[in-house]
Formats: sequence, structure tokens, C-alpha cells
Amino acid sequence: MDKKIGLIAGNGAFPLVFAREARRQGETVVAVALKEEADPQLEQAVDQITWLSLGQLGKTIRFFKDQGVTRAVMAGQVKHTQLFRHILPDLLVTKLLARVVNKKADTLLSAVTREFEQEGIQFLPSTTYLDHLLCPRGPLTRRAPTSSEKSDIDFGLPLARHIAGQDIGQTLIVKDKTVVAVEAMEGTDACIRRAGQIAGPGCVIIKVARPKQDLRFDVPVTGPRTLEAMKESGSAVLALDAGKTLLLEKETLLKVADAAQLCITGV
Amino acid sequence: MDKKIGLIAGNGAFPLVFAREARRQGETVVAVALKEEADPQLEQAVDQITWLSLGQLGKTIRFFKDQGVTRAVMAGQVKHTQLFRHILPDLLVTKLLARVVNKKADTLLSAVTREFEQEGIQFLPSTTYLDHLLCPRGPLTRRAPTSSEKSDIDFGLPLARHIAGQDIGQTLIVKDKTVVAVEAMEGTDACIRRAGQIAGPGCVIIKVARPKQDLRFDVPVTGPRTLEAMKESGSAVLALDAGKTLLLEKETLLKVADAAQLCITGV
Repeated sequence: MDKKIGLIAGNGAFPLVFAREARRQGETVVAVALKEEADPQLEQAVDQITWLSLGQLGKTIRFFKDQGVTRAVMAGQVKHTQLFRHILPDLLVTKLLARVVNKKADTLLSAVTREFEQEGIQFLPSTTYLDHLLCPRGPLTRRAPTSSEKSDIDFGLPLARHIAGQDIGQTLIVKDKTVVAVEAMEGTDACIRRAGQIAGPGCVIIKVARPKQDLRFDVPVTGPRTLEAMKESGSAVLALDAGKTLLLEKETLLKVADAAQLCITGV
Repeated sequence: MDKKIGLIAGNGAFPLVFAREARRQGETVVAVALKEEADPQLEQAVDQITWLSLGQLGKTIRFFKDQGVTRAVMAGQVKHTQLFRHILPDLLVTKLLARVVNKKADTLLSAVTREFEQEGIQFLPSTTYLDHLLCPRGPLTRRAPTSSEKSDIDFGLPLARHIAGQDIGQTLIVKDKTVVAVEAMEGTDACIRRAGQIAGPGCVIIKVARPKQDLRFDVPVTGPRTLEAMKESGSAVLALDAGKTLLLEKETLLKVADAAQLCITGV
């Protein structure tokens, strides 16, 4: 019998990266791609695929059971325009709302996973097969933090963990041992741009997981867009929670970072 | 002998309001107005005045001693463009930097006040004579918080105190029991505008003092500009730390709030 894994695919590169890695490691990937969310490229990256809407829970379970799936992951974010229905969901806002829902959705997702479990389908951490993309400890870029940047990390890291522990946001930005910006609903990249506008170049960005992060649902992911925001705002350092943050496009990311003299480091 | 009080006057309405109230209550006000900071109207609002630059500590002490001042207050913020010298200090940035310095300056200010003390001049809380302008507990406006707004306050208040306790920022903005925005260096009004852009109308703004706030140096002040930001962004409620926040232009503030159906409440 095949080694089979189910994939519930939201938006972004995460589901694609997961599918490719899982297949490279010998899995047959059976995907439920969420309509208006998942990347069409997924069709080529998996072995079986069906397109369903968010909320078609019964159909998802039936599809997985029909395909003989007993283990599955969720990867990629899901937009959600219901929460603040009265605002115009432009691109930014829609992205932001997705994150809110991710945060609020822990209890909902726990309930959903129990449904799957009752049907014999277990959810694995979405980092499964992606260990090599988890941020290690120490500098990943050619440039390591300077001693003053290291002081800023040491100053900000406990504060960032503190705030992430309150489910407020995962990013805190420091310069000269002063907190320049704290992320809540605006998202990492908007927070980075704000910090640049306020404090100019040289900011140190600290992004951490929640202390009780459930890696089945909500893995902090860093991609090229974050690096673009850093370049635009002249930020100096990106410090990531080692072992808990995924660098989905690691090679591109490090190439861009090195070219811009940026430092990415695991803490 | 006269009842005399010294005033070191930074920018904004605070020094003026203080001077007028102190004189109304029978004090002779002797002011050191900081050049490029203090409002020229101060000339008419005090009994004695001299214009000095920030840092002219010796001259300030000498002036107070010559005038027979033994008690003094500091009121109003001080801009500081030295800290992040490499950014263009536009109006917003300059305002923001002022707040940073206020935060960082606690140890510096303690050292400065010790200098005055050695010369026989004590610093009083800048709320002296202004008790009637401190935010009381409960609604100040005609409109009280709705039950859902009350839930948002209850949800956000401990988080706001938490963050203020870490010296990060004093303002936290909530909607539907989700943290929309956290203030760091951008200032209250910019934080309110951001929240409106992200989450639309109906945000609840919670502004608290630091748990160990030294009322001699750094009193949270709310004025008409905060209400303008609320009106622009459609915010619903301003919850202020009762007994620790000054409403400098209280009558105007409440008039504007009532006209816009806003709720201001002490918590």
C-alpha cells in the first residue's frame, strides 16, 4: 500500500512546498484545494486533487476516506471576509483578516480536527517533511548581527515572547534598545514598513512563535515579501524563532538577504 | 511671603493649563520656558518667565533660586531630534521621538531632579492643581459603553496594562475581542488611525498609565487631537486609566465627543 498523506491547501507557497517535499520523500499526496485560496499550480504538484470550499467539511472527510488517507496536514492561510464584513476587503485587509481568524480559530480548528479523528484521520504538524526549512539557531546569512544589533535582539526577544504569549502578534521591532513597533492585526510586513518610517534604517525585527503554538494549525512562515519590506525600510536584522519558523523559499531568501547585506538569524 | 511654584514648560497645552490653574489656586508661577518648545502664550499666563534651552540646567536652577522657588513641576513634552539623528525630523517623527525620550529619560530625569533637590527645589507631580482634570471612573460622555464595547474593554484592559508595564506603549485597540493595534513609538493618534484602516469603525481604544508611572515626569494626556483621530477612523470608545490620565481641555473634549456619539469612560 502507498504511503499517503492528505493536504488541506490554503493560499500562498506553503501547500506547494509541502506537496513537493512530501512527494520527494516518497509520499503520495492527496489534496483538498480550497477554492479561491489554493494556487492552481498545486494540480501538478500532487497525486490527487479536489477543489472544495471552506466549510465543506463532510466532503473533505469523504474524499480523504475514499482515497485511503489516514494522516493529513493543513498548509497555507485562509482568507476570511466574514469577520469584519462591513469593511471593504481590499488585498491588505483580506490578508490581515486571515491572520486574525487563524488566531481566533484555535478552538474551532480543534473541533474540526476532532471530526477528522473520529473518521480515522489524524492531523500532523504542517512542518512534517519540512524540518530542513525550519530556521536553525544562529546566523543563516553571510552577515551575523553586530554587537549592537545583538543587544537589540537580547532586549526585544523577551518582550516579543511576552506579546506572542498574549496572542497579540508575533513581531516586535527594536532600534537602539527602544521598541519601535509591535505587530497586532496589520501583519509583519506592514509593521516593518511602519518601523522604517518612524525610526529610519537599522531596525531589528524579531518574529517569534506563540509559546503554545500548535504546529498543526499556525506555523510562522517567512518569505520573500518580508525581505522586500525590510529592504524598502532599510531594516538590518531579521531574528526568527529557531525550530519554529519556516523559511519556505530558503535559497531565494538567503540570496536576497546576502545581496542586501541583511542578517537573518535564528534565536 | 508668596506661595511660589516653578514650572519647566515643554510644548503643548499642558504648561498653559497648569499655569492658569496654579494661579487660580493662589500660586505665583515662575516659569522656565524651553526655547522652540513652549507656547508663547505662556508669557501672559505666568508671573515670571525666562526662556532657556533644554540642557541649561545650571541657569534653570539659578533662576528658580533667585526667584525663591522651592517647589516645581515639569509639564509638556520635549522634542528630541538627537536620538535618531539620521531621519528627517518631520512633524510626526519629531512628536514621536519626544515620547521615546520621555520613556527612556526616566533615569536621566531622576538624576536631574536630584540636582534640583540638592539646591533645595523639590519636584511635585505635574498633576498638582489639576485633580479636577484627571479622568474619573465611569462614563464622562452622555453615551456609556454598550455591553459589547464593555466586553472589548474587559478583554483589552489587562493586555493594555501588561504592555504598558513593559514600557512598550500605553494604547491598545480592540474590536470584537481581537487586538487590532498596539502602540509603540508611533503615538496614540497614529495607532488609532491604523486601527480604523484595518478593522473599520467601532474600535475600542484603551489608554493606560504605566503601573509605576512617575507623575512628576510622564503623565498620560488626552486632548482634542486624539478625538479627531477617533472621529476620522470611526472609533467608538476611549477608555482611560481613571485617576492617572489628564483631560487637559475637558469641556471641549466632552462637547466634541457627545456631538460625535463617542464614549469616553474611565476604567
